Amino acid sequence: MHLSTAHRPADGVVERRLTLDGVPGILWTPDPPASAPAPAILLGHPGGLERMYPRLLARAARAAADGFATATIELPGSGDRPRLPDLEAARADLRRAITRGEPVDDDVVDRLVLPLVEAAVPECRRLLDALEAEGVGGPFGYSGGIVSLGVRLAAVEPRVVAAGLFAGSRIPRAIIEQARQVRIPTHVLLQWDDAGNDRQEALSLFDALGSPDKTLQANMGGHTGVPEHAAEDAARFFVRHLR
Amino acid sequence: MHLSTAHRPADGVVERRLTLDGVPGILWTPDPPASAPAPAILLGHPGGLERMYPRLLARAARAAADGFATATIELPGSGDRPRLPDLEAARADLRRAITRGEPVDDDVVDRLVLPLVEAAVPECRRLLDALEAEGVGGPFGYSGGIVSLGVRLAAVEPRVVAAGLFAGSRIPRAIIEQARQVRIPTHVLLQWDDAGNDRQEALSLFDALGSPDKTLQANMGGHTGVPEHAAEDAARFFVRHLR
Repeated sequence: MHLSTAHRPADGVVERRLTLDGVPGILWTPDPPASAPAPAILLGHPGGLERMYPRLLARAARAAADGFATATIELPGSGDRPRLPDLEAARADLRRAITRGEPVDDDVVDRLVLPLVEAAVPECRRLLDALEAEGVGGPFGYSGGIVSLGVRLAAVEPRVVAAGLFAGSRIPRAIIEQARQVRIPTHVLLQWDDAGNDRQEALSLFDALGSPDKTLQANMGGHTGVPEHAAEDAARFFVRHLR
Repeated sequence: MHLSTAHRPADGVVERRLTLDGVPGILWTPDPPASAPAPAILLGHPGGLERMYPRLLARAARAAADGFATATIELPGSGDRPRLPDLEAARADLRRAITRGEPVDDDVVDRLVLPLVEAAVPECRRLLDALEAEGVGGPFGYSGGIVSLGVRLAAVEPRVVAAGLFAGSRIPRAIIEQARQVRIPTHVLLQWDDAGNDRQEALSLFDALGSPDKTLQANMGGHTGVPEHAAEDAARFFVRHLR
């Protein structure tokens, strides 16, 4: 992992751009630094690191205030990374169905999400390796979307000990089935009036999660309107389980 | 309203037993007292004040720490109050259906809940009058079960400005319809694995609530196992909306 020189984009947080096997990302650490290695949270996002930067930085600054490092990398096929033709085709099918007001086939959801999860999980795990080599993290949390990526990581990556999942995107049936294997504490955020989302799918995911300690919190405000108090509750979830 | 002499059942809270038109109840106030009239929260419960006392006191002590008075009265047909024959008959029908593992008819839910709500709402409103006469409350919150009573009060009583609803009991269709009239902020607690509850009914209630600001929080732990962090989130809901 290559780390750029540090700067301070906001109070209490230091930022370093990173490159890992050619994939761009960002590492934020608390400032002043924690004396012990800080627990770290992997920040999920829908792809497009630069577009998402302001919101990612806000989440990183909040986490830093709680003593947590945060890190994120670009998703396969997003931002400056080469497009994945199959993924683009599935995206086009999704947009076509939505434009026509038609239901989105399970097949489209599978083609859209599963290859992305397959490609992103090993990259996330290499990021955990690289962070540990830098003395960052352990334990790790996962926070945000893509919810299917968070579920897969929660099921297969033992270094991830708590997952805050933003249920704001379609979820393949195979991921809902895999959720039954998850045992770590989970905190699922759902925007009840998220017009582009499938609410019943999110409820099915929450029901399937095998975590003995799981919380669903649903709020109003549309896809991007998670209320401040919900962000605070999610932050407290990580304080309970990562410290 | 007759108030007994005060005593201090726990740190930071003063308790007075009350009688209102022959109905027993309890008033708790913060100690030391708030300089202005403290906002007050009406504590809902399933009936049986003495049986519920330890849990009610714990909720009162937490609210007092946030600067809130709390008050509760016995439900019609519960505790030392005369039994209501129609309600007892509906309860017997409910128990019979549950024992036989049969679905509970909507008609049984209606006969069980609606007359109770009809009788309890005017008593709650008289309690608000009496509390205001004592310089307690204004604004008021409602917290807990019976969820149908909380919904009805939230819909019809303008002095109630925030409702924390424990969705742990069956809800008549008429109450779910009335929820559409509710405009005040609501915080709905649902125990996801509450074996004796109807989860879909609780989700339908949350969906129906007309509150622009509404939160659903679902947790594990069974009917009586609301986790500590959920109780804290509910307390913060009242701090946001009653102070």
